Amino acid sequence: MYEINETHDPNLKSWVESANDPNTDFPIQNLPLCMFWKAGTEHQAKEKMGVAIGDQILDLESIIGRGLLDRFFKDDDREKYAPYFNFACLNPLAWMIGGNRLLLRAGLTFLLNERASADERGEVQKSLFPSSDVIYKVPTSISDYTDFYCSIFHATNVGSMFRPDNPLLPNYKYVPIGYHGRASSIVVSGTDIQRPKGQNRGDAEKPPVFIPAKNLDYEMELGFFVGNGNELGQSIPIGEAEEHIFGVCLVNDWSARDIQAWEYQPLGPFLAKNFATTISPFVVTMEALAPFRTKAFERDPDDPEPLDYLSDEQNKNFGGLDINLEVYIQTEKMRTENIEPHLLSRSNTKDLYWTIGQMLTHHASNGCNLQTGDLMATGTVSGKEKSERGCMLELTWRGTEPLTLPSGETRRFLEDGDEVIMKGFCEREGFRRIGLGECRGRITPAT
Amino acid sequence: MYEINETHDPNLKSWVESANDPNTDFPIQNLPLCMFWKAGTEHQAKEKMGVAIGDQILDLESIIGRGLLDRFFKDDDREKYAPYFNFACLNPLAWMIGGNRLLLRAGLTFLLNERASADERGEVQKSLFPSSDVIYKVPTSISDYTDFYCSIFHATNVGSMFRPDNPLLPNYKYVPIGYHGRASSIVVSGTDIQRPKGQNRGDAEKPPVFIPAKNLDYEMELGFFVGNGNELGQSIPIGEAEEHIFGVCLVNDWSARDIQAWEYQPLGPFLAKNFATTISPFVVTMEALAPFRTKAFERDPDDPEPLDYLSDEQNKNFGGLDINLEVYIQTEKMRTENIEPHLLSRSNTKDLYWTIGQMLTHHASNGCNLQTGDLMATGTVSGKEKSERGCMLELTWRGTEPLTLPSGETRRFLEDGDEVIMKGFCEREGFRRIGLGECRGRITPAT
Repeated sequence: MYEINETHDPNLKSWVESANDPNTDFPIQNLPLCMFWKAGTEHQAKEKMGVAIGDQILDLESIIGRGLLDRFFKDDDREKYAPYFNFACLNPLAWMIGGNRLLLRAGLTFLLNERASADERGEVQKSLFPSSDVIYKVPTSISDYTDFYCSIFHATNVGSMFRPDNPLLPNYKYVPIGYHGRASSIVVSGTDIQRPKGQNRGDAEKPPVFIPAKNLDYEMELGFFVGNGNELGQSIPIGEAEEHIFGVCLVNDWSARDIQAWEYQPLGPFLAKNFATTISPFVVTMEALAPFRTKAFERDPDDPEPLDYLSDEQNKNFGGLDINLEVYIQTEKMRTENIEPHLLSRSNTKDLYWTIGQMLTHHASNGCNLQTGDLMATGTVSGKEKSERGCMLELTWRGTEPLTLPSGETRRFLEDGDEVIMKGFCEREGFRRIGLGECRGRITPAT
Repeated sequence: MYEINETHDPNLKSWVESANDPNTDFPIQNLPLCMFWKAGTEHQAKEKMGVAIGDQILDLESIIGRGLLDRFFKDDDREKYAPYFNFACLNPLAWMIGGNRLLLRAGLTFLLNERASADERGEVQKSLFPSSDVIYKVPTSISDYTDFYCSIFHATNVGSMFRPDNPLLPNYKYVPIGYHGRASSIVVSGTDIQRPKGQNRGDAEKPPVFIPAKNLDYEMELGFFVGNGNELGQSIPIGEAEEHIFGVCLVNDWSARDIQAWEYQPLGPFLAKNFATTISPFVVTMEALAPFRTKAFERDPDDPEPLDYLSDEQNKNFGGLDINLEVYIQTEKMRTENIEPHLLSRSNTKDLYWTIGQMLTHHASNGCNLQTGDLMATGTVSGKEKSERGCMLELTWRGTEPLTLPSGETRRFLEDGDEVIMKGFCEREGFRRIGLGECRGRITPAT
C-alpha cells in the first residue's frame, strides 16, 4: 500500500494556475492519467497518454521524448522507459511496477511545481493543451470487465423489493458477489447512450414483447483497473492485492430494469447491462489516493468475519477508500430552461461491505488470470440513508415513488434526453481535495 | 447461408493420402483453420495460420507468400490480401467477407486435390507439416466470451434438481438465456486444468470453507466465432445473423459445482466457471458446414413461437446444425492399465432449442457490439436420453448415481488425473464425414 509522501503535501502549488483553484479536481496532488486526442485531428491520429493538471492536459510522450523526466528515473538511460509512453492505451503504465510509478509521480510533481525554473516551465508548457481542446478515450485496453455487488445497502434494498422476507442472500457476507460484464461496450464519458430494445414482460398474463426498454436506470459505481496481472492457476494473496491495482475511475453501469427482471434468472444480468457502460476518462492512481485510505467496513458484531483468504490486518485497517460519489440529472427541459443539473444522491465508497483488495483477491482465488488494464467495478455504491441510494431503482423504490425535479418533471426511470452526470472526490482534513472528474452520458431514443 | 457446392463433393480426394482415410476429421471437404507453432521453435517464434488436411497442417502464410493462391482471388494483386495471412490470430480471416472466404476455400480445394499437378504438389508440399510436430494456440483473439444455455434438456434436467416443481423458468422459451464468461482463461485443447479452490458450503449449518473444489465437472458445448461484428447501437437482423458467424469449435466449460451452488445467486456463475474454458484448436468454417445444416428445433405445439426478431423462414428451415458430440474420460488408472478412453455421452447440436443465429441476433438485439473473433458457446448440449447428457452433473444426477468405469473405478465428479476428451463430427448420407478435432484437458491437483 502506498504511503503518504511529499507529493501529497497540501501546500504544494503548481505554476499551472488553474490547478490551484480549490474546486479543481486536478490539483498537483492528483495527477491522474488519461488517453486523449487533440480535437481537430483525424480520428485515426494517434491517441496519447496524458496527465490532467487543473484545466490542462500534459502530453506524457512529448515530455518523455524531450528528456524532461530523465533524471527522475533510477536508470537515466531514457531508451529504457521511453517506449512505455508511446502506446495507444495506459496498459504499459498500469503494468509498470509501483516503484517506477512513484518516480514518475515525483518527477511530474517536480516539473509542475510552482518552484520549477522558468526554463523548465517553458519546456513543459510546450506539451500542455487546454482540456477543452481534447477528446478522451477509454484509458486502458480492457480485456475483461467484472462487476461486483459490494454495497450491502444496495443489495439489501434491491433484495427487499424482490424477496421482502429474505432480502440478503446467505452468501452475501461471505462472498464478494461478482459477475462478468461486457468489455466491448465500455464507452468513455460523454458518449451518447442509445435506449436499448429488449424483451419486456410487464404483463405476466401475456407473452413478452420486444420494445424499447421502459425502465432505464443508471448505477453509480467505482471502477478500478488491474495493474500487474497473475498467471492462470496462480492466486493473489490479500496482502499483495494492492500491488495489482493501478487506480480508479467512475463507472455508470447503465441498466434496463424491465429487461433485467425478465431475463436474469437463472444466469444473471445480460442484455439488461451489456448495451453500454460509461467510465470517466481519468485513472486516479492508487499513489494519489494514499491519504484517502480508511479502514474496511465495520461489520456488525453478529456478522461473520471474512474467511482467512480475504482478510489481513492491512486490509482491515487501510483497505477502504474514502471517496465521495455524487449523481446529478439534467433533463432536456432543464437544459432548455437553463436549470442546473439536479443532485440525486451522495454516497461514499467507505460504505462498501468489501474492499477493492478483497474483490481482486477473491476474483483470482480460483486461479483466474487477471490481465493488465482489466476493469473491475464495485457495483452500485449506496449508503444507509435514502439520500445515499446510488440508482433510480432504489431512489424511486422500483418506480413506485417518483422523483420530482426542479423543472416540475417527475421521473420513475430515465427518459430520452436525460443526462446523468457522476462526480467523485476525496476530502480529508489536512489534505488537498482531489477529484475523479466526471462520468456523463445522455440518453438518446431507441432506433 | 452458404450453399453446397463442388468443394463438398464426396468424391473429391486429396494427394495428401491421410486426408482420404475414412476416419480422418480433416478430409479435403473440411479445411478447418487454426493457429500453430512449429514445435521445437521458441515460444516467441511467430505463430502461423494453418489449415488442417489429414494428418498435416498447411502453412497459409507460406503458400500465400509464394503466390500459390493468387489466381483464386478476384483481384490478382496479391499485395491486397497477403497481409491478411500474416497475423498472430485468425481474426483477419474471420473478418473477411464470405465471398472471399469462399474463394480461399475453392483455391485450397484446388491445390490439395488429387488432380493438382506434380509441380503444384511440390510447391504446396514445402508448406506442409505433420500435425504431430505442431503446437496449437487459441485460434482467434477473443475480446469477449459469451456462454448460452440453449439445450432445453440440459436446462430441464438441471432445473429439476434444484426446483423439482418448476424445472424450466418461464423465460426459457422466449429468451436465448446467456451470460458473460471470462475471455482471459480460455485455453487450447491439451492444456492441463488445475483444480480450483473456492468457497464450499456443503454443510449449511456451518460457515463455508475455502478448499479445493470437490464437484469438478465438464460441460460439452459447441462454440462459434464472430466474423464481422456490429457497431455499438446497431442490431443484427435474424436474416443476416449467419453472415456474422465465422465457424465453430468444441468447448469444454469446466464447472466447479460446489462453488457454483454457493456463489451463483443472484448474479449467476462466476468463480465456478472462470478458472478455465478449453476449446479445440480448429475453426470449422460455416462454408464447410453447409451440408450439415438442418431445421431449427421443432417446438412442441404448446410452446410459443419465437418472437419476430428471432425468427424467419431461413432460420426455421436451415438454422440448425447437425453435429454429433461425444465425451470420453480416461483416468490415471485407465492410462496406466492401457484402457482406452471411455465414452460418457453422445449428443447432437440439432437438439438445441435455439439456433446459433438466434443466439447471435439476440445478443446484438439491444445494440451490444459484437467483435470479430469473439467466442460464443451454446451451453451444455444434452439430448432427451440419459446417454445424451452433456455433463457429469446430469449423468450422475448431482452425484447421487455414480458412474462405473471400465477400470472398476466410480465417479461422481472428476478426480485429479482424469482427462476429458471431447470430439465432434458431422455425417450425412451422400457427404463426406468431417470432424471438429478434439478438445482435451486433464485435471491436475489444486496447489
